[in-house]
Amino acid sequence: MAFLVKKYGGTSVGTVERIQRVAEQLKQARDDGDDVVVVVSAMSGETNRLVGLAKDIQPGAVDVRELDVLLATGEQVTIALLSMALKALGCEARSYTGGQVKILTDGAHSKARIESIDTENIMSDIRAGSIVVVAGFQGVSADGSITTLGRGGSDTSAVALAAALGADECQIFTDVDGVYTTDPRVESKARRLEKITFEEMLEMASLGSKVLQIRAVEFAGKYNVPLRVLSTFEPGEGTLITYDDEENTMEQAQVSGIAFNRNEAQITVVGVADQPGIAYKILGPVSDLNIEVDMIVQNKGMGGTTDFTFTVDRNDYSKVVAFLTSKKEELSADSVVGNDKIVKLSIVGVGMRSHAGIASRMFRALAEAGINLVLISTSEIKVSVVIDEKYLELGVRALHDEFELAASSTNELS
Amino acid sequence: MAFLVKKYGGTSVGTVERIQRVAEQLKQARDDGDDVVVVVSAMSGETNRLVGLAKDIQPGAVDVRELDVLLATGEQVTIALLSMALKALGCEARSYTGGQVKILTDGAHSKARIESIDTENIMSDIRAGSIVVVAGFQGVSADGSITTLGRGGSDTSAVALAAALGADECQIFTDVDGVYTTDPRVESKARRLEKITFEEMLEMASLGSKVLQIRAVEFAGKYNVPLRVLSTFEPGEGTLITYDDEENTMEQAQVSGIAFNRNEAQITVVGVADQPGIAYKILGPVSDLNIEVDMIVQNKGMGGTTDFTFTVDRNDYSKVVAFLTSKKEELSADSVVGNDKIVKLSIVGVGMRSHAGIASRMFRALAEAGINLVLISTSEIKVSVVIDEKYLELGVRALHDEFELAASSTNELS
Repeated sequence: MAFLVKKYGGTSVGTVERIQRVAEQLKQARDDGDDVVVVVSAMSGETNRLVGLAKDIQPGAVDVRELDVLLATGEQVTIALLSMALKALGCEARSYTGGQVKILTDGAHSKARIESIDTENIMSDIRAGSIVVVAGFQGVSADGSITTLGRGGSDTSAVALAAALGADECQIFTDVDGVYTTDPRVESKARRLEKITFEEMLEMASLGSKVLQIRAVEFAGKYNVPLRVLSTFEPGEGTLITYDDEENTMEQAQVSGIAFNRNEAQITVVGVADQPGIAYKILGPVSDLNIEVDMIVQNKGMGGTTDFTFTVDRNDYSKVVAFLTSKKEELSADSVVGNDKIVKLSIVGVGMRSHAGIASRMFRALAEAGINLVLISTSEIKVSVVIDEKYLELGVRALHDEFELAASSTNELS
Repeated sequence: MAFLVKKYGGTSVGTVERIQRVAEQLKQARDDGDDVVVVVSAMSGETNRLVGLAKDIQPGAVDVRELDVLLATGEQVTIALLSMALKALGCEARSYTGGQVKILTDGAHSKARIESIDTENIMSDIRAGSIVVVAGFQGVSADGSITTLGRGGSDTSAVALAAALGADECQIFTDVDGVYTTDPRVESKARRLEKITFEEMLEMASLGSKVLQIRAVEFAGKYNVPLRVLSTFEPGEGTLITYDDEENTMEQAQVSGIAFNRNEAQITVVGVADQPGIAYKILGPVSDLNIEVDMIVQNKGMGGTTDFTFTVDRNDYSKVVAFLTSKKEELSADSVVGNDKIVKLSIVGVGMRSHAGIASRMFRALAEAGINLVLISTSEIKVSVVIDEKYLELGVRALHDEFELAASSTNELS
């Protein structure tokens, strides 16, 4: 008997048959005595179809208010169909759009932030024994306009609802059965983690492990909502994401997982004057272009100049190189060089805080594999390096071995 | 300069290109100085697609609350796309779902009735120079649930908005260019009417001229909203539907149009006791089956028995015959017979009120064409006969000639 918020993504509700299967799982939970609020995405493919229509209609910049009106229909279709499927199984159910709940957001169309959630109607339905079916991804602004939280925002909807309702757990059902020590397609010995902390999950997610939306993890951490990632299609316990359990920290592994991001490119502004304000002078105009910068490294050079290096999304690479090259004179730089054939590789683990020497073990393992490091950047629970993309698989496997993450390992994780 | 409510049906907004064409027409009206509120249906095919999904999910009786949630997405897609198309033309526009307006209805899902319309937001947008784009067919009940007005309800939405907003005219854009004296596919000499009264339009609509929804015409008549039917695809003045203009009644034609309905079937309960309550005894159980009865004729028979005849939708024919046959003993009837190869043919015109002998002219014209009449039924502005379906075209043309409705005629219509 628990109060659960369950979220099913687009693939999990992608066909009539899959919606019916989800309904059966929900009925089982209800029959077991759980109170259930379910949050759903649009059926897979639907959001892309709608975006396609919008682009056909307004080939330039699409009006974001109206795009939100359009996209919100995707989840609205799913809540209706899932509620019908539940009723077909004899299960009481009631659907809510974001506006009907109401999930109040700011007015930033296509990337709105949740400000408050009215729980009254939902709680009254739950008390009456109904399963409540809520459209993810959407809300309503103060002026009554439909808003959306941005792609993947259904995870955020689910976590925010779990926090507002005081649910025992927020369960995110996806097409993978949990969070792994690394990508199993790269390292076959990768192992599903039973538990991981919010902080570790944030680092894993931000590095390209696309199991969960970063904002959803942040939200869960902020409101301390236990978050579980499970498979829609296979039974299993999945991976539980919670706060670090203090009692177990003694035994915890130093490294929980190996993450990587293939989608980065590196840019170096060579020979700029080593003086206060140079970082802002370079990155200010870049962020004005709405381009996000990831790693930033500045190395003291000789003779009063320095090389300033940072990474950006690979799609933005040419644009940024061209832009900074055009500003070369203004920056008094010798040249702008770069490389878009690189990847970022990281080890993540809260155990690093209390264990020295983790970074050097990482560097040694990579050196022994013959991999040269282009950039290094560290945070409290993460060490990232940039390497040539051709060494990605080699590097992942070397680190997975080095930190004994394989299924046969006796390491118990955080 | 007028305040217009314009309604475009599913065919008119069936593709991206058609939506763009509608946007151009609306921009033209705005540029001409008109204030414009536009009501749209779902893109053609969309409602059927959604109903198909619902039936796949819940093959028995579909939950009507959730069906409304599902179907309402159809119009929501159109309002978003049309607003985008208007903005792409540099026209200010703002979309509203039924709930956002808000169009308050009763809670009768799938056939809700409008109770009130909040005009504040729409008027403020209109004053600001925007075109307001409203989702037809939908509203919201007092408990915040999405409701729909039933198929074709977008016409009713448009008329109700025009009434609430005090618009000068409600224009219904369709794939035909107006209301005709009869179906041009049956009588090539059929002529578009410039004007027709609400009452005549009601009779024409109820007889199968599917240009307008009956409820919309009733609503327009009740609130005296001038209603105009026009083509989306061809220029023209269409047909204006208004109250009978007293000043012109002297000159008006006796008959405005010839309507027919191919979708009827006739059932006779033979030899029932001619006593009070027999009509209810037969038709009460039929209406309990949710079957609508159209014409009802009872002929005094001989020897204390009577034959009781009525017509139903052809789809309900077998069901009703089987049902009444099973009740034969109870009704003390000799037999139940019927015919589903019949059609109803009618002449309609407010002029009948002041001109005697119209019905007999009709009967004579049909007799001269060799057409036998099975049933006759009359109302104030209509005479209907049931004839063998094979004589339909012959009958329509005979009456069209008899009442001089052809384009070359000098008859000026109401």
